[in-house]
Amino acid sequence: MTTIETVSLDEARRVIEAGEKKARDIGQPSNIAVVDHGGNLVAHIRMDDAWIGSVDISINKAFTARAFDITTQDLAENAGPGAQFFGISGSNQGRVMIFAGGVPLYRDGKVVGGVGVSGGSGEQDQTVAEAAAAGL
Amino acid sequence: MTTIETVSLDEARRVIEAGEKKARDIGQPSNIAVVDHGGNLVAHIRMDDAWIGSVDISINKAFTARAFDITTQDLAENAGPGAQFFGISGSNQGRVMIFAGGVPLYRDGKVVGGVGVSGGSGEQDQTVAEAAAAGL
Amino acid sequence: MTTIETVSLDEARRVIEAGEKKARDIGQPSNIAVVDHGGNLVAHIRMDDAWIGSVDISINKAFTARAFDITTQDLAENAGPGAQFFGISGSNQGRVMIFAGGVPLYRDGKVVGGVGVSGGSGEQDQTVAEAAAAGL
Amino acid sequence: MTTIETVSLDEARRVIEAGEKKARDIGQPSNIAVVDHGGNLVAHIRMDDAWIGSVDISINKAFTARAFDITTQDLAENAGPGAQFFGISGSNQGRVMIFAGGVPLYRDGKVVGGVGVSGGSGEQDQTVAEAAAAGL
Repeated sequence: MTTIETVSLDEARRVIEAGEKKARDIGQPSNIAVVDHGGNLVAHIRMDDAWIGSVDISINKAFTARAFDITTQDLAENAGPGAQFFGISGSNQGRVMIFAGGVPLYRDGKVVGGVGVSGGSGEQDQTVAEAAAAGL
Repeated sequence: MTTIETVSLDEARRVIEAGEKKARDIGQPSNIAVVDHGGNLVAHIRMDDAWIGSVDISINKAFTARAFDITTQDLAENAGPGAQFFGISGSNQGRVMIFAGGVPLYRDGKVVGGVGVSGGSGEQDQTVAEAAAAGL
Repeated sequence: MTTIETVSLDEARRVIEAGEKKARDIGQPSNIAVVDHGGNLVAHIRMDDAWIGSVDISINKAFTARAFDITTQDLAENAGPGAQFFGISGSNQGRVMIFAGGVPLYRDGKVVGGVGVSGGSGEQDQTVAEAAAAGL
Repeated sequence: MTTIETVSLDEARRVIEAGEKKARDIGQPSNIAVVDHGGNLVAHIRMDDAWIGSVDISINKAFTARAFDITTQDLAENAGPGAQFFGISGSNQGRVMIFAGGVPLYRDGKVVGGVGVSGGSGEQDQTVAEAAAAGL
């Protein structure tokens, strides 16, 4: 495999725009981050009044979604006490986030990057992230 | 003083837009990051083909410019061997960048945030950062 | 005792080859890492399409298996909430992995190194790791 | 930009094989690491008797060469006291190596990954890395 699909800045902006619109609709200021196929940050925004502690979390949710090609919500189910990946949050220098809000970005059925949202409840973050991902 | 001036997401986007335009003018794909008064990231972009190692550097240049209310170019002069702040780059968990490309953002003579650029030579980064800062 | 048994690069490659074959058989692209008696990396591969977040995990599973001369699957049973080693995953700078996929390498009944696999479910990782270890 | 060129495991192995051959020719056991376009590890070997402290260095030289699309030897010239990137080694969580032995991997004039070598003198590491890169 020598050619891969990834996410351009224009695409990352579309993802963020879609997420930002949803965040406004539900009234939850959020951090939204997009990473490319290599897991590296392409773009990030923190909406006014969104948590400063969520900058890091949004970026790492996006990384996690791409790093394991899974939503962080689904990963969470496998990462609790007794589950098959309990302890995974200690890997990758603490960059693995195991709660909702990180979603892989797909094009033609292949993962090309990830989006991470942090700012509200898990349900809100997941809602915004899914809307963002649909904006690709 | 209980009221501070800071940088909104709209303003950060104007700063990035101005920097991005300059980066295109000089033909140097760049990472551009904006932090607010608290030194926390408001927005970041990595232009297509810009270095992945510069994501971290752009964000930390913006932090440094605000953290010490100085351009990272000026800080560099004080942070080399024998200079008064030699070793400062080891503080703040490695977030202090001591080479050109980080510039404080001013409004009415007061620092309200910072912008950091990484992607080209020190001179190019500085040029883009100054253009970005002027876009506030 | 001043002489120890360890793992050479040739042996590490045999271990990886055996693991890679099993990973292909079960259709699960994987990261496979081998450490020597000192717990230090001898060789690593990431198969095409295997998770990038699993690079770190495979290396650390191999380290963990050798560091405590135990499979990470068995360690997991002792590292959960209420168990005797709960919290051990916070030691060794986050290098201790407490889920399946890390297996000690034995020669003549003595541990000489470790192999770590990450890329699929815990069961898949364990299957690949055991096949890899048998290749020594 | 949505499609990029990267490095497959087969290609990484060719790179390592070419580097390993050169390392044997000059009699210097070495660590050799290859990263893909995203800067993530694809494969690594430590030849028998090569330094254990060089595992990390080889991987990070490969990362650095890709992260900034430059040889670490050339980067070194820009990273010393008084040079334009002095302090860059403190960025990216200490992963930036500023001495010889890291070389970008090119295909059709585009950077697709990086190779990092550590084990001997700077000149030896550079020699092995260049031979490795030519093996792509």
